Amino acid sequence: MTLRDYHLTLHDVADHQPEYLETIFSLANGHFGVRANDPISGNPITGTLINGFYETSPITYGEAGIGYAQQHQTILNLSDLRHIHVTTDSGHRFTSSERTVVDLDLTTGELTEQFVLQTQQGETITMGMKSVIGQRQTNFWAASYSFTAGNYTGGLLVSKSIAVPAEAESIPSVDPRKTRMAGLPICETQFVSRGLQRYHVKTRRTKQAVTIYLGMLDKTASLLQQPVDLSDGAAHKLEYEVYVGEIGEQNTIDPAAPFLANTVSALQDDSRQFWQDVWHRSEVTVGGNEELNLAIHYNIFQLNQAAGRDGRTNIAAKGLSGSGYEGHYFWDTEMYMLPYFIYTNQQMARQLLLYRYQTLPKARQRARALGVGQGALFAWRTINGEEASAYFPAGTAQYHIDADVAYAVGKYYEITRDIDFIEQCGFEMVLETANFWEAFGGWHQVGTENRFEFHTVTGPDEYTALVNNNYYTNRLAKHNFELVIYLAKEILKEDPHGLEKYGIGQGDLDVFENLAEHVYLPYSDDLQINEQDDSFLSKPRWPVDRSTPENFPLLLHYHPLTIYRYQIAKQADTLLADYLFPEDLSPEQLKREYRYYEGVTTHDSSLSRSIFSILAARMGDPEKAYGYFMDTAQMDLVNLQKNTADGLHLANLGGSWLALVAGFSGFYVQDEVVHFNNHLPKEITKLTYRMKIAASVLEIELTANDTNVTVISGPIPTYGVSVDGELISLVKVG
Amino acid sequence: MTLRDYHLTLHDVADHQPEYLETIFSLANGHFGVRANDPISGNPITGTLINGFYETSPITYGEAGIGYAQQHQTILNLSDLRHIHVTTDSGHRFTSSERTVVDLDLTTGELTEQFVLQTQQGETITMGMKSVIGQRQTNFWAASYSFTAGNYTGGLLVSKSIAVPAEAESIPSVDPRKTRMAGLPICETQFVSRGLQRYHVKTRRTKQAVTIYLGMLDKTASLLQQPVDLSDGAAHKLEYEVYVGEIGEQNTIDPAAPFLANTVSALQDDSRQFWQDVWHRSEVTVGGNEELNLAIHYNIFQLNQAAGRDGRTNIAAKGLSGSGYEGHYFWDTEMYMLPYFIYTNQQMARQLLLYRYQTLPKARQRARALGVGQGALFAWRTINGEEASAYFPAGTAQYHIDADVAYAVGKYYEITRDIDFIEQCGFEMVLETANFWEAFGGWHQVGTENRFEFHTVTGPDEYTALVNNNYYTNRLAKHNFELVIYLAKEILKEDPHGLEKYGIGQGDLDVFENLAEHVYLPYSDDLQINEQDDSFLSKPRWPVDRSTPENFPLLLHYHPLTIYRYQIAKQADTLLADYLFPEDLSPEQLKREYRYYEGVTTHDSSLSRSIFSILAARMGDPEKAYGYFMDTAQMDLVNLQKNTADGLHLANLGGSWLALVAGFSGFYVQDEVVHFNNHLPKEITKLTYRMKIAASVLEIELTANDTNVTVISGPIPTYGVSVDGELISLVKVG
Repeated sequence: MTLRDYHLTLHDVADHQPEYLETIFSLANGHFGVRANDPISGNPITGTLINGFYETSPITYGEAGIGYAQQHQTILNLSDLRHIHVTTDSGHRFTSSERTVVDLDLTTGELTEQFVLQTQQGETITMGMKSVIGQRQTNFWAASYSFTAGNYTGGLLVSKSIAVPAEAESIPSVDPRKTRMAGLPICETQFVSRGLQRYHVKTRRTKQAVTIYLGMLDKTASLLQQPVDLSDGAAHKLEYEVYVGEIGEQNTIDPAAPFLANTVSALQDDSRQFWQDVWHRSEVTVGGNEELNLAIHYNIFQLNQAAGRDGRTNIAAKGLSGSGYEGHYFWDTEMYMLPYFIYTNQQMARQLLLYRYQTLPKARQRARALGVGQGALFAWRTINGEEASAYFPAGTAQYHIDADVAYAVGKYYEITRDIDFIEQCGFEMVLETANFWEAFGGWHQVGTENRFEFHTVTGPDEYTALVNNNYYTNRLAKHNFELVIYLAKEILKEDPHGLEKYGIGQGDLDVFENLAEHVYLPYSDDLQINEQDDSFLSKPRWPVDRSTPENFPLLLHYHPLTIYRYQIAKQADTLLADYLFPEDLSPEQLKREYRYYEGVTTHDSSLSRSIFSILAARMGDPEKAYGYFMDTAQMDLVNLQKNTADGLHLANLGGSWLALVAGFSGFYVQDEVVHFNNHLPKEITKLTYRMKIAASVLEIELTANDTNVTVISGPIPTYGVSVDGELISLVKVG
Repeated sequence: MTLRDYHLTLHDVADHQPEYLETIFSLANGHFGVRANDPISGNPITGTLINGFYETSPITYGEAGIGYAQQHQTILNLSDLRHIHVTTDSGHRFTSSERTVVDLDLTTGELTEQFVLQTQQGETITMGMKSVIGQRQTNFWAASYSFTAGNYTGGLLVSKSIAVPAEAESIPSVDPRKTRMAGLPICETQFVSRGLQRYHVKTRRTKQAVTIYLGMLDKTASLLQQPVDLSDGAAHKLEYEVYVGEIGEQNTIDPAAPFLANTVSALQDDSRQFWQDVWHRSEVTVGGNEELNLAIHYNIFQLNQAAGRDGRTNIAAKGLSGSGYEGHYFWDTEMYMLPYFIYTNQQMARQLLLYRYQTLPKARQRARALGVGQGALFAWRTINGEEASAYFPAGTAQYHIDADVAYAVGKYYEITRDIDFIEQCGFEMVLETANFWEAFGGWHQVGTENRFEFHTVTGPDEYTALVNNNYYTNRLAKHNFELVIYLAKEILKEDPHGLEKYGIGQGDLDVFENLAEHVYLPYSDDLQINEQDDSFLSKPRWPVDRSTPENFPLLLHYHPLTIYRYQIAKQADTLLADYLFPEDLSPEQLKREYRYYEGVTTHDSSLSRSIFSILAARMGDPEKAYGYFMDTAQMDLVNLQKNTADGLHLANLGGSWLALVAGFSGFYVQDEVVHFNNHLPKEITKLTYRMKIAASVLEIELTANDTNVTVISGPIPTYGVSVDGELISLVKVG
């Protein structure tokens, strides 16, 4: 590990556009996020996102229908906490600033910046800024600003407060990946003392409230008019701290002295300890490739920053780094981000699954609204658990989210053996999703074959909608049926009456077994590959003359009807199932399938390349795997999708970790054995990473010829560990 | 013909709800329509619909996309022309009224009504009303009101004016069959003289303007304060006339004396002559069944009232009888209404096709927006030619409208041989739609078979959306290809250089021929029937426990995703193709297909039953045919769909005529021969009807054992006439 590997600076990023930098250097802690606005010239009324703090607005349809999602849910982009107002003592305001230094330390969570400020009259000074967000005390954020003379050497007046937003005009966008304007909340500000401002914000429709305090740690100082004298040539520091309350919390801190226990250095310690623990559990190092190391460290850092930790919140598609996709939670969590937490921080994984469990009552209601008489259907996109997808063909129709949640529960249990969680929450989710599939599907007799089929669904690939027997959906539903049987047996092992509270018995399990056996999985005899759905392979290919770069992403250039009628995929779909269930197909079929679907995939989704990387590694094509991985690893740092300004691509951050771990090191778990298979590409001479599985931290080290697994801390695990197909014995080091 | 057959009275209709009566007794002339509002208690600010007079508003999507329709188009529901204000000379206002008599004379177009009016003080009088709309002088409507003493025998003050609408709150509906609130137009009223009011209405966004005059025919009388003295016991008549200008027309009548040439009786003559002509061309009489005769006469009457006659307007889904479906024109015109005009009034049929031709430039643009590089795609629902469908899966995806328009052009030409129209307009429409299909479809190799397929389309059955190879769509597209070849040959007969202006040659025709040959028509070997689409037959059947009456129409009770995943049809789809192309299938296959699709059709669409009736007649099941026909014939008179209040079901009106003519009398035209086949059900002992084909009016008379065709006026036609499969010679009678 080198210093360089853990410091992200201005030199490491694709461009220096303000909105892009705001996202990239955002700080967060699962509870709230602070975008790295320019503190002088940035937008003072936006920049802070609180996980789960959202407003609703009625969804207006051109033509509405029964059972349509009723309310938009939109995360609120609250006032920038970083903004500061500096004037000379003669009243010249520093209005422009140049960001000359940025250093985000991934080992401490500290963001160090430097700006050259200038007045319209040409006076300059230098402003340093250090900021940090609390990682265990997640209500706090602190910043110290230090001022040094430039060509201006006189006195300054510094003022800092939380700005109240004014009504802005809504600008509708046809880019579904952006957010929408939410109704402005009701805001009240109050100066509790000259050094302490209270800011209360309450949404008009959802009636959520949050109290934020901004204060100066120097009790004698003034928020609104603090003099600084630069004439001595020294650096003069002003320290501020912010308390962001819990949603709904009222006055839980003493407004007279909210920050007594929290000096900036205390918050720095808090943050440092948190990150030390993260790296201890989940460090990843690619030998000799500083740039790549930095990228993967950054991804893991942002994954941890984004994840809600309280069981009531989750990971938004853009985390807390931006308001793209309105701050909604998608299947991305379960299928792309949860694996990292399951294998490095089971407590966090449990909290994320708890969030879904809390939405189960709404998921039951949603199933009824969709005309399915039993079971539950989780919302495709949501904050509060209600469906917020305003375009159902690429939203609600993605029923696979049900099986994705079930799959994640199974993976969590597989490695934690956390039967309490299964009995309290997990089994109910798996059972209710299986119940959904049972009532949603239909039998279809073809010759002598009796198939259980799922019609009019949309798979992960949103460039194909409302099809029959989407392979991914069917395969995951089959797994959902199998999982309910497996978990039922696990419960019965603990307690022979353990199923009674769910009102099911052996007869129900037999029904699920029969369904699992008969779920139809479309296969092309002609091409000898699994078919994405019943009709995908019969569609014409996307025209060559529309395949030049300016046509992508297709969703921003073509009507859905145009896209849907071609054989073109936004992302891995059938291949995603192949990644999840490696035992399903022979190496030869995988190769055929990979070659075929790669030819019709645009990767317009940021969820695509990581899966292509993993499968290429498994197939023994490490060069291709490396290529896809590099795009994955650096997606936001190079602004590959060109919309990082709206927020980071969280699913891809998880995907880049998966590409290393599930791809290059061939990691997977099956039947209580943890497998590693060395698929290192020649560009990576050495890969070292850690996992925390049950109580043990493992370190895995791969070189071209060798794979070593050692126990770094905790007991020698009881599960088996296999390397390149052979079971090994673990030793404990250090 | 009896008197009873041509008089619709209050006794003949399903209920006496005001909104229902307003629709049923509406008067119209293709230019404008006057709903039969209660003149005393009805809504004075709505009731008049001008064909093609509409306002736009931006379509708001929950989630918008590229190429989506941009603007709603909504026919404006203008001020009621019938409203009148009556008080006693002591100022007691007659506020309630009971409609005691209504008589709509279908031979004259005169509407005769009687009301008992009452004040809150209990004073009563009787008010008679006679109204008529100009059918050749289509700018005029006139009414005479006559007042007779009741328990009140004193003086009256009568006032009448055109009311200006005020802002009303918009109430969104999930029923897609209703209209929406359009933005209010700018209205100006002006009293040119005490007996003449000028009303100018201009839309804010579309900038359409119309001038309406309301005047008293008695030049000495006053619109706002006309005294009437009832003390003599006699009836006292006041006569009013209204001039509804053309859209965009400015001051084309002399405001000083607008009605000089138009006494009420002049307008009555105009109307009577028009209807005499209609019945001469298209009388239909079912021997001995007065109720049925009345229904079919009514349907024909309303078809004629609704149809735009100027080549710039068309027939709205609700005609001019109500604002349901926002006054939009659909494929209903070509496939359900145009046949009546083609076979009774070729001039009108030409005008309706001319409307489509005028929208061709917009249809070309729409094809480009849908990613199709050549040809034209007509708007699924529109007034001005631009797509106004805000839900594309059941709108724009119904590409079949292109082939429907082409089919109608072909049917028009078949019987008129109007080569001028083909050369000026028709061929261009057929060519551009064929061009569209060519670029829209794709080749698909299955084994040795090379199929030309159409993917991701919606057929006529909107309960199944975005499917591949919808049989109806493919069959009609095939016909579209064949038709362009046929019409090209017809043009070349006239002029060997006739195709040059279109830039096509024999090579292009060969391409179309090859496409026509290879268009894929899905067929189930298993069931030995044509398949509605590639996947329809593999879906589960609609659950029996959701098949009780309260679940219908399904679109008002279920999410589209629920409906789409079942094998359930809103209306005839594959069977509609069977009706259009009887030569396609054997009687046995037709029976299988009919039995099968009847079992999965809800008839939630008013376009369904007429087709089921026709095919049952052809299949030799006259009892079933009669059952469907009776629902068709009386659909609005019995309020079968329960939404006649929103307007008449115009397509069904056309369909009921088709059921008699194409069904019971087995009429169709093929290869310049007009065929009749006697399929009379036992309930109809005698069916007599007229057609005008080319210059000749034919009368066809069917009894159980006999079919006679005679020429009523015009020359003996040159085309062949076949009865029950044998060519006959026509004689002229009278």
